[in-house]
Amino acid sequence: MTLGHTSPTQRVIDWLHALERSLAARDIPSTLALFDDNECFWRDMVSFTWNIRTMEGKDQIAAFLTATLAGTQPHNFHIEGEAREAEGVTEAGFTFETQATRSRGMLRLEGNRGWTILTSATALKGHEEKCGPARERGIEHGVHKNRTTWLERKTDEEASLGYTRQPYCLVVGGGQGGMALGARLKRLGVPTIIVEKNAHAGDSWRKRYKSLCLHDPVWYDHMPYLPFPDHWPVFSPKDKLGDWLEMYAKVMELNYWTSSECKSARFDTSSKEWTVVVDRAGKHMTLRPKQLVLATGMSGMPEVPKFPGADRFRGEQLHSSQFVSGEKYTGKRCVVIGSNNSAHDICADLWENDAVVTMVQRSPTVVARSESLMELAQGPLYSEEALNRGISTDIADLTLASIPHRLAPGRNIPIYEEIRRRDKDLYDRLDKVGFLYDFGEDGSGIHTTYVRRGSGYYIDVGACELVADGSIKLKSKVTVEQLTEHAVVLTDGTVLPADLVVYATGYGSMNGWAAQLISKEVADKVGKCWGVGSSTARDPGPWEGELRNMWKPTRQEALWFHGGNLQQSRFYSLILALQIEARETGMQTSVYGLQDVHHLS
Amino acid sequence: MTLGHTSPTQRVIDWLHALERSLAARDIPSTLALFDDNECFWRDMVSFTWNIRTMEGKDQIAAFLTATLAGTQPHNFHIEGEAREAEGVTEAGFTFETQATRSRGMLRLEGNRGWTILTSATALKGHEEKCGPARERGIEHGVHKNRTTWLERKTDEEASLGYTRQPYCLVVGGGQGGMALGARLKRLGVPTIIVEKNAHAGDSWRKRYKSLCLHDPVWYDHMPYLPFPDHWPVFSPKDKLGDWLEMYAKVMELNYWTSSECKSARFDTSSKEWTVVVDRAGKHMTLRPKQLVLATGMSGMPEVPKFPGADRFRGEQLHSSQFVSGEKYTGKRCVVIGSNNSAHDICADLWENDAVVTMVQRSPTVVARSESLMELAQGPLYSEEALNRGISTDIADLTLASIPHRLAPGRNIPIYEEIRRRDKDLYDRLDKVGFLYDFGEDGSGIHTTYVRRGSGYYIDVGACELVADGSIKLKSKVTVEQLTEHAVVLTDGTVLPADLVVYATGYGSMNGWAAQLISKEVADKVGKCWGVGSSTARDPGPWEGELRNMWKPTRQEALWFHGGNLQQSRFYSLILALQIEARETGMQTSVYGLQDVHHLS
Repeated sequence: MTLGHTSPTQRVIDWLHALERSLAARDIPSTLALFDDNECFWRDMVSFTWNIRTMEGKDQIAAFLTATLAGTQPHNFHIEGEAREAEGVTEAGFTFETQATRSRGMLRLEGNRGWTILTSATALKGHEEKCGPARERGIEHGVHKNRTTWLERKTDEEASLGYTRQPYCLVVGGGQGGMALGARLKRLGVPTIIVEKNAHAGDSWRKRYKSLCLHDPVWYDHMPYLPFPDHWPVFSPKDKLGDWLEMYAKVMELNYWTSSECKSARFDTSSKEWTVVVDRAGKHMTLRPKQLVLATGMSGMPEVPKFPGADRFRGEQLHSSQFVSGEKYTGKRCVVIGSNNSAHDICADLWENDAVVTMVQRSPTVVARSESLMELAQGPLYSEEALNRGISTDIADLTLASIPHRLAPGRNIPIYEEIRRRDKDLYDRLDKVGFLYDFGEDGSGIHTTYVRRGSGYYIDVGACELVADGSIKLKSKVTVEQLTEHAVVLTDGTVLPADLVVYATGYGSMNGWAAQLISKEVADKVGKCWGVGSSTARDPGPWEGELRNMWKPTRQEALWFHGGNLQQSRFYSLILALQIEARETGMQTSVYGLQDVHHLS
Repeated sequence: MTLGHTSPTQRVIDWLHALERSLAARDIPSTLALFDDNECFWRDMVSFTWNIRTMEGKDQIAAFLTATLAGTQPHNFHIEGEAREAEGVTEAGFTFETQATRSRGMLRLEGNRGWTILTSATALKGHEEKCGPARERGIEHGVHKNRTTWLERKTDEEASLGYTRQPYCLVVGGGQGGMALGARLKRLGVPTIIVEKNAHAGDSWRKRYKSLCLHDPVWYDHMPYLPFPDHWPVFSPKDKLGDWLEMYAKVMELNYWTSSECKSARFDTSSKEWTVVVDRAGKHMTLRPKQLVLATGMSGMPEVPKFPGADRFRGEQLHSSQFVSGEKYTGKRCVVIGSNNSAHDICADLWENDAVVTMVQRSPTVVARSESLMELAQGPLYSEEALNRGISTDIADLTLASIPHRLAPGRNIPIYEEIRRRDKDLYDRLDKVGFLYDFGEDGSGIHTTYVRRGSGYYIDVGACELVADGSIKLKSKVTVEQLTEHAVVLTDGTVLPADLVVYATGYGSMNGWAAQLISKEVADKVGKCWGVGSSTARDPGPWEGELRNMWKPTRQEALWFHGGNLQQSRFYSLILALQIEARETGMQTSVYGLQDVHHLS
């Protein structure tokens, strides 16, 4: 093949054709020859691996194909739409099939050779979602004695599931993650119950601090199947989002148990069944699902540092998750420990209510203005302009997924260089007051920091100005030495008299939930959740290449973790739902490359 | 201009260009020269007329342009997409502006000459809906003392509107019509309250008979702004639709007063204000809106014929709107008076529950099988296939609106000829048992029958078979002579012993609501609602060309009627909302061609 004589689209068609031929022949050397010698990646979600896994370089690709090809039988590759070419890289979406799945992917060619390929399942053959032309009729035409109505069937399902009939899958936690997964499983026909400790769907948002709005813009935040209408505000206020989610649970007909708390779970290796004790509105019940999903939230397990003297402090102490509003702190002296999103939002809320606020910054924060992020970081895929260029939410999600974690930082660094230039004035003023900011250890910014540690940043919607102009007092490069009866004492000797201490100190790894609900043993068996092994703060190596334990098989059979922001909840809920459905339908699901556990938390 | 040398698209561009030029010059002879000499129609919604009005032939078009052009100033005509050509007719959508509006339309050329043109407003300039790129941000970036949250503003609006602050518009009736209009007015920022007598949004559907599903398919039924997700069943079960509408009212943030009944309304001609008494959950309140919309439903005012002896009948008598389920009539003798949709559904429900059912048919019914209708009548615009051909709901609605009422029968007759051929077997069997069917007086079928009288048909989802095979007993070509204590006596002398009589006898004209809520005088002033003056049964002439009183100014200032099926609620709610918004913003709204009143009910 020579470059330049063929159109980008034809180049992709030719490449996919060659790939299909060599895969069909199980000819691994020929397959490898299609890829770039210097750098190549194959990211797979379910289609080949029944896992989420990125193979880096030809050796890993060879090993992966050797192990999976016979069972996968990929075929029927077709480009979707037209290919795009920029700076020598040709990019196009495609569809294909395996023996078990309908799949799709995205390909990038460097010249004529494969640079990155994503392969991702969209449906299990014979078990497709009943939608579009395959939707149900809703009425059985003809007349039938003893016909049941939709309402009768729904009422019966609600009354029987969990009582006389066991759910196949139990989802613990009914935030956006649990709901998105529940909606996928509902459409796939997998009997599922979602248990949520709050009294109403949506309360996990409603109960957070009063001024909270989503920090991601609306184009990034749609739930599966039912996008927000086009007047939805750019940044959803938390109560509005709560109402939306409550509606979502209802119209998607989720078996959503409110006021229900999971108390314990135990897996029986012989019956291959979980025994889960749930307190449903005060009544203990035992459920016996085959699959258990912890969707209790990336931000579900508050982490409160143990400072000496915390028990003798006479004022109020709250984790950020417990903070509701600054209203009752007018005139009070408030110390907020932490300097990420919640810390900034809470400091601003307290200041707006005329409290005296000090932020204690213990380590650098990645800071970027929301406007700049929207335009430079998210805009190319998630924005009104992207929609106008034909980039639907679906295409945006696929594109985002097609970038291997190894390559993401390199793509983001120039964006943050531009942000730093553009907003120099703000950064200079932050410097002046001693605020510690960076752009991640390698300058790759918020998205990679989020992938690495799930926090560590502030998307500035205004509070930076308050820090810069001293409205929010700042103590940085220090931590807390101790609390006294009426003050927070810092390591530099500063004594901050305080009526309120807010610990905006983040959340623990999700396997902490496994420790709490199942056992320390199982929590340690699966190990740390989240992070890709980047060898940066809070994300120790070795390199994993994928988020640990998220949306994929873990070292504990039939235990899954689901979480993340709204974009991740939307996208990965399908990947996870297909894995669960495959097990329900009894398909062969040989997991390739189950991760090793290197860290316990 | 000569035909054949230009593409269909170019032909439309040329025609629109010529139209724009002659309209700008206010040159009516030149404008008329663009239209076909034999037959031409100009249907306008708001853009020129501040009314819904079809001008038929050059004389009417000339008169309309003479009256409206100076105030309208149409300009900036542009074709939308490509034109289509079939059988000598070229069709294309277009956009344009007037002084006051953004508008669009659809044009059909017969050869080179205008055959039909629709012009329809989509927005008032300077008062566009805040959506897409113009959507609200949801958060005010920056920090502000005394900032209010979305929840606070919403709670405040709910507490104040109707109490300390008057709504500009009051909508009586919160079914799909009231909700669709409410959603439009919300997006347009017109303060509106919807009063609904039921305890929950959606109850107007939930409370109907148990087996009810929509008779129109899902593609026809979307509400504005928030389409059903793509797994929604083809025929929505009534309770599922009820849940959807309840969610809709909530997430669209309608000021929707449940358990609220409008008791009386009176217009003060000097203050230009309504005084409306509303019972809100037992408490009488007085509202003073400037505009009053009766959205109480095409099917809101039950019509029960007064048969001699009805008062001495010892069994149960119900109007079809009161019938809930056949369950409690097992073994009972039931007589259903009527032979349209509700009558068939109720007969089938009773039969399914092992009642002994007789249908009394007094006049012919338009009958067509649902499958045949879906494929032949609705399919070209509203179906999965239409979507695949790029016909969005929006385009389908515009296309449907672009067909003048005068032309609709001619387009439908061939469809029903095909249905008659295709389903001959069914019709033959109905003949055998004496069931009276036709295809409307001119063979134009269900849609035109609906436009003419709002009822008179059955979309067969199975009950025809029960009639044909005698499971539902039939008495046709008769009516009721009287009721005795235990029987219905027909005009042919038949005595039908009965435990239950269901009057599936339809609904009265919507101006009956005006009589009930306002006065007989106002009801008579506005006259009959619905129907186009087709001189067929229940739709007496003279020819009106548009539905009487629907979605347009009436002879009573500031009184409007809104109703119809889900498609009409969706489409015409915008037309009506723009007229109301124009008045709120104080625009000049010179109504052209306010209808004469020829019939009182």
